[in-house]
Amino acid sequence: MILIDGKKISAEIKSEIAEQVKGIKERGGKTPHLSAVLVGHDGGSETYVAFKIKDCQEVGFKSSLHRFEDDVTEAELLSKVHELNSDDDVDGFQPINVGRMVIGLPSFISATPDGIIELLNRYGIETSGKNCVVVGRSNIVGRPMSVLMSQKAMNTTVTVAHSRTKNLKEVCASADILIAAIGSPEFVKADMVKEGAVVIDVGTTRVPSNETKSGFRLKGDVKFDEVAEKCSYITPVPGGVGPMTRVSLLKNTLLAATKQIYS
Amino acid sequence: MILIDGKKISAEIKSEIAEQVKGIKERGGKTPHLSAVLVGHDGGSETYVAFKIKDCQEVGFKSSLHRFEDDVTEAELLSKVHELNSDDDVDGFQPINVGRMVIGLPSFISATPDGIIELLNRYGIETSGKNCVVVGRSNIVGRPMSVLMSQKAMNTTVTVAHSRTKNLKEVCASADILIAAIGSPEFVKADMVKEGAVVIDVGTTRVPSNETKSGFRLKGDVKFDEVAEKCSYITPVPGGVGPMTRVSLLKNTLLAATKQIYS
Repeated sequence: MILIDGKKISAEIKSEIAEQVKGIKERGGKTPHLSAVLVGHDGGSETYVAFKIKDCQEVGFKSSLHRFEDDVTEAELLSKVHELNSDDDVDGFQPINVGRMVIGLPSFISATPDGIIELLNRYGIETSGKNCVVVGRSNIVGRPMSVLMSQKAMNTTVTVAHSRTKNLKEVCASADILIAAIGSPEFVKADMVKEGAVVIDVGTTRVPSNETKSGFRLKGDVKFDEVAEKCSYITPVPGGVGPMTRVSLLKNTLLAATKQIYS
Repeated sequence: MILIDGKKISAEIKSEIAEQVKGIKERGGKTPHLSAVLVGHDGGSETYVAFKIKDCQEVGFKSSLHRFEDDVTEAELLSKVHELNSDDDVDGFQPINVGRMVIGLPSFISATPDGIIELLNRYGIETSGKNCVVVGRSNIVGRPMSVLMSQKAMNTTVTVAHSRTKNLKEVCASADILIAAIGSPEFVKADMVKEGAVVIDVGTTRVPSNETKSGFRLKGDVKFDEVAEKCSYITPVPGGVGPMTRVSLLKNTLLAATKQIYS
């Protein structure tokens, strides 16, 4: 079993991005700039945004954080969002991005699916002709993931499973590549996984814990200890998909800064 | 085995559209208007466009046909297309339409997938929790079809199969609902179909024939005679999906004329 090291791969990609940013600056180009809007003081969001800003610093991007209190009016918030959106949008969730991705045109791609494709590619995992099961059909992970895995670049035969899927256990156990994006801690047990499968765990649910300083720990959608023994490759939580999501946001930001992809 | 009568259902929907158009005109509203652009004299395209114009007349739409010879310059053609596109676009293939459809927002939907959803709904075919296999991943049929069948309104567990799918026979034979959009005449044989399955045949390939006046006949992707015996429902070719594609174009035109769906 090979543990897929998202931290290591994301660090590699960050170095590549930093190199490119250095080149842009040397040529007198515009420094990529990522803006984040944060409302209130939710712990998870604070952490995520703090990571983004740190990531930007590491690769040489500018970054800015626009804070609002919980009682901000919708009008104030929308006004800020519209102001920032007059710059190009890199998050990949806009309909135009989704549409371009689905029909195979260059586009900004949702950061998590893009990060997973990077992991599969950089670990040299063979995908063509394999059965891939994506559990979850959300607009930001499951749906785009299923489309990307089915396109010619990956060429897997994709099944999208969800809450209404009957015989879910059998469907999952048929997967050569199983991508769990459910949001339910340790949902995927060993008996749902084929011997030798590649398992990608997108889940990051915070569960209370006495053992950590923060008072919580992250749990994935996969019961790691029992599933890991059966896999050829598996991503841990944390340190698997999470860092890749962050680095894909940097990739999209760089793409937005260096070229106009909607020509 | 129930033969799904696309001609009958499309006639029903046409009557409904005609009623609505009558209402629009009585209220002094704008008459829906469909423009088609035809280059050269390809037999299939001539037929298809002639049908569109006839359909428009039947439901009370205006229609216009813009003809160009084979030697039209790209610039001339683009100029006409841009002129027409300054009106709202109803074909459902634009990235913005695809994106809105994928993330579940109101949108114009590719006519063929929309027509198939109508057939399933109007025949009261149970879909929730069923296994659906879509063979083919084109941007105008297979891909949008797979997304629609996987969304909450249909709630099937969808697998997208394609040229690189291994064990295609077994994948197809696992389908409760099999949608063949391959473009290869009589590709789907009886041994690829589960007993009692619903089979939707999207294929319409012209093959030479001595028995028809036109010198050709349409063949579907399904070997009808042997597959029909095993099915609970099946669409014939012609007279199944084809008429539904045409009527869905009318639906999109009506939608464009009566409301702005991108608010």
